[in-house]
Amino acid sequence: MDIGLIGLGHMGTPVARNLIKAGHRLTVYNRTRAKAEALAGEGAGIAPTIAEACRAEVLITLLADDAAVESVVFGPGGVLDSLPGGAIHLSISTISVALSERLLQSHQSRSQVFAVATVFGRPEAAAAAALFIVAAGHNAALAKCEPLFEAIGQKSFNLSERPADANLVKLAGNFLIASVIESLGEAVALIRKAGVDPHRFVEILTGSLFAAPVYKTYGTIIANEAYEPAGFKMPLGLKDVRLALAAAEALNVALPVASLLRDHFLTGLAQGGAESDWSALARLSAKNAGL
Amino acid sequence: MDIGLIGLGHMGTPVARNLIKAGHRLTVYNRTRAKAEALAGEGAGIAPTIAEACRAEVLITLLADDAAVESVVFGPGGVLDSLPGGAIHLSISTISVALSERLLQSHQSRSQVFAVATVFGRPEAAAAAALFIVAAGHNAALAKCEPLFEAIGQKSFNLSERPADANLVKLAGNFLIASVIESLGEAVALIRKAGVDPHRFVEILTGSLFAAPVYKTYGTIIANEAYEPAGFKMPLGLKDVRLALAAAEALNVALPVASLLRDHFLTGLAQGGAESDWSALARLSAKNAGL
Amino acid sequence: MDIGLIGLGHMGTPVARNLIKAGHRLTVYNRTRAKAEALAGEGAGIAPTIAEACRAEVLITLLADDAAVESVVFGPGGVLDSLPGGAIHLSISTISVALSERLLQSHQSRSQVFAVATVFGRPEAAAAAALFIVAAGHNAALAKCEPLFEAIGQKSFNLSERPADANLVKLAGNFLIASVIESLGEAVALIRKAGVDPHRFVEILTGSLFAAPVYKTYGTIIANEAYEPAGFKMPLGLKDVRLALAAAEALNVALPVASLLRDHFLTGLAQGGAESDWSALARLSAKNAGL
Amino acid sequence: MDIGLIGLGHMGTPVARNLIKAGHRLTVYNRTRAKAEALAGEGAGIAPTIAEACRAEVLITLLADDAAVESVVFGPGGVLDSLPGGAIHLSISTISVALSERLLQSHQSRSQVFAVATVFGRPEAAAAAALFIVAAGHNAALAKCEPLFEAIGQKSFNLSERPADANLVKLAGNFLIASVIESLGEAVALIRKAGVDPHRFVEILTGSLFAAPVYKTYGTIIANEAYEPAGFKMPLGLKDVRLALAAAEALNVALPVASLLRDHFLTGLAQGGAESDWSALARLSAKNAGL
Repeated sequence: MDIGLIGLGHMGTPVARNLIKAGHRLTVYNRTRAKAEALAGEGAGIAPTIAEACRAEVLITLLADDAAVESVVFGPGGVLDSLPGGAIHLSISTISVALSERLLQSHQSRSQVFAVATVFGRPEAAAAAALFIVAAGHNAALAKCEPLFEAIGQKSFNLSERPADANLVKLAGNFLIASVIESLGEAVALIRKAGVDPHRFVEILTGSLFAAPVYKTYGTIIANEAYEPAGFKMPLGLKDVRLALAAAEALNVALPVASLLRDHFLTGLAQGGAESDWSALARLSAKNAGL
Repeated sequence: MDIGLIGLGHMGTPVARNLIKAGHRLTVYNRTRAKAEALAGEGAGIAPTIAEACRAEVLITLLADDAAVESVVFGPGGVLDSLPGGAIHLSISTISVALSERLLQSHQSRSQVFAVATVFGRPEAAAAAALFIVAAGHNAALAKCEPLFEAIGQKSFNLSERPADANLVKLAGNFLIASVIESLGEAVALIRKAGVDPHRFVEILTGSLFAAPVYKTYGTIIANEAYEPAGFKMPLGLKDVRLALAAAEALNVALPVASLLRDHFLTGLAQGGAESDWSALARLSAKNAGL
Repeated sequence: MDIGLIGLGHMGTPVARNLIKAGHRLTVYNRTRAKAEALAGEGAGIAPTIAEACRAEVLITLLADDAAVESVVFGPGGVLDSLPGGAIHLSISTISVALSERLLQSHQSRSQVFAVATVFGRPEAAAAAALFIVAAGHNAALAKCEPLFEAIGQKSFNLSERPADANLVKLAGNFLIASVIESLGEAVALIRKAGVDPHRFVEILTGSLFAAPVYKTYGTIIANEAYEPAGFKMPLGLKDVRLALAAAEALNVALPVASLLRDHFLTGLAQGGAESDWSALARLSAKNAGL
Repeated sequence: MDIGLIGLGHMGTPVARNLIKAGHRLTVYNRTRAKAEALAGEGAGIAPTIAEACRAEVLITLLADDAAVESVVFGPGGVLDSLPGGAIHLSISTISVALSERLLQSHQSRSQVFAVATVFGRPEAAAAAALFIVAAGHNAALAKCEPLFEAIGQKSFNLSERPADANLVKLAGNFLIASVIESLGEAVALIRKAGVDPHRFVEILTGSLFAAPVYKTYGTIIANEAYEPAGFKMPLGLKDVRLALAAAEALNVALPVASLLRDHFLTGLAQGGAESDWSALARLSAKNAGL
């Protein structure tokens, strides 16, 4: 399939590689052109402009935040102006529910198709084509994207016909991961202060009721106190919790644990944690405990 | 082995059955004698007094709370008075770290052995001999109890030589389960209010990063809003969170998520939830969201 | 002095009356013209457009929120386009720190003067010319506005030369008032459930350490459970706490009590409290306590 | 009147002085006898035992906590054993509601009278006979104690006939003071990080809606960051919040702000604040903000 891809960050680059490996004709665009050129040798076409990346059946955006997506889509010569009628804009970025709804309306008014495929997994999982994919949009669009999902993920879920639902589920999922980090961090601070070995504690948890990837990944990081280099930086964690809170606020839903997470991320950042993994929430718990 | 067992509640009865099935000579004592007699037909001996249950190599207590354990152990004619020197008191109850430390000292002063084996799993898991066991105490004592662990659980962890460590890990573990319930409840309230199907949401979570028993069990209950009959009642949830907070307070450790859980359990109880499962925390989130 | 005033809501109307009473030549503009006409009989001139209200030495804006101020100031034919060079835009509205900073820059680039005078006090206090005023801006501008402050308030404070400081202090002050409401609401729920008379409780507090207007006003409302009609509606309370949180987030400052307030306001709104006074936070505490 | 007084700490000593000044015959008992002897020169009789202090019409206890009161009252040769029938035990200590109820029953069973007079005010206020007194108990008993209240306080409130109500109101009041400290601390952290002068901020608050002693006292301490020497130490603050939480828990009432206070006190203690004033909660907010 002819695919365009805009955004070659920590997630975009491995996704691009897996699409090429799966045999798709991929054209990439990145604001910093060097990152795009790195993929040329592996078979990617380089688009000098957003408009040229849009000459595709499916145009993927995988960008850092709302502002980046808005600038790429709504700017002059942007995706909205350039995507052919009937072509699909598949948004993989973690963005707000509100922006996702605006994108849907904007694309519909141009007879373009908008679909969302949010992904769970850190860069290693992206490299291993082992992402979990939560897709939403019209069935025909999702069916067309299915080969892409197979190329980049280990499993995909067709959630609903409303694209923004996939954004909300992604935000709710990241909220749940952050909750795991926070509660694990508090529990580990407690048992460490009592003199119990945190590695043994994590081993027991993940060997019993908590035998899930998220506990294994973060339990290990927290027991090792290995928050740098970051797999997912604290400011991104704050961003996602903020987006979950914003989506909830629009519906008058309180999320007390998310409020607490937001406060702890801010404190972590105020104390110099901008380059740390978001699991450094646990370092704050340890510090507060006097460890 | 000759085993005594005091306490035939939701957990004690299936544990007793599995000990008998594994071929141990079991003598049981229960304050309400009828529950003990129900097991007579299955091969258990009935002890008319605590003292007679204590004529054993290992005396197991599996009681509701600190008060019940204190009454059985420290009262006249209680475990402390009755257990032979060198015999083991194996405490399975979820009790405070402070009481566990007091039990250790009391038994040591009588040349009795005190060990702890806390368990993770609901009554169904106890019936299926599928509990997870966290044991702590002198190695010789734990080695002697190993056949009992095999009879009642699917897996046991030897944590450390200090019995109270196993109590702390149990409390920390229950705190983590309650945290999962709370954050799941908040996330489900959010996605339900946005019109997303909660069953599909739970399916996605447990089919990806959250593929752990605890998310499957509680995700299903919450999606079904099926909080009665209770597997583990709200007052017990409050009790365990309170014990975790007490253990943490003794060490000057703040557990903000546990504080939030405590508040939500109290609100649930004030609104009539005493007979509901502790996962009815999620009903409170739904109610607060106006669902 | 020649004064223009835009915004005749609950606060704007009594402020306008007091300016007229003090002998100033006042021209008013309101989107809904009827509210302006009501003041014509009292001596106010009616401006048919924003531009005509701007023909003044001091143009006051007293509007509901950021969006209203942005629309009045930045729109075509708005304040920025219309205010004479050297004239003062005095902003009394409770708006975000970020918007205040943007207003300062925009006015400076047009050689106009921007100053802020935020006020504490409910509509009754505005009617009685008993507001407390926190002013910030260049000293010359504040000196010129001093007669206006005397006309509408009982006391004014010259805070600093940076206008946005007055917005921040207003948000911090409203956060403190909301904190008083929340903690009073919790305390009253407790003593009421214990059978203590809440009126007596409030009388004791305000007759001893808490002899401040804010405790008298809100203590009485809460003891009487008289949340309607609202003096200051819950959505406005949420708005101000949200602005305080936003100002704090921009500086990486966590405000845990504000987070809790935000959650409680959202729950109050989800349960139908949009027309209630913001002190109906206390009704939520009572409800949660099963009262 | 013949008065006995047990407990000569920071509050007991000035209270004793004011009783002597008012002309009462005072006999004092203190575990550390030196503190009692210091008062001998001012006219106090020294009781070598608790029993001798109890030879009085009114026996006042003013002790640090539940444990101290229990030891003095229930021990052999204690208040319960020694107080004459019909004499009054007036408890001024900040103790739990549960202990107060137990004291009432115990004294009634001995035909002794139990009444409570809790006080608001720091040691300086005690020295100046400027305490606020909240009294509860049978009217006859309170009438008899009225001259004592006049000797030590500026104002007394007769709350109800149930002594424990005065304990609850004291705990609720201290909870409210701690809430003021916490929210002030957060607000000051915010405005300081924005570059606003905290002294000016406190001046504005206490010159307008927050013109109450509690804001003046703590606003000044916080603006000055002068947490040592302590007027009321952090462990005592934690104790009182804990007692408020316990009273609320017995009634299934959640106090979210109190939970937050408890967490922050624990963190303050874990970081070495045991000798600091309880208003050092504000230091934690500043630290968390990176100040």
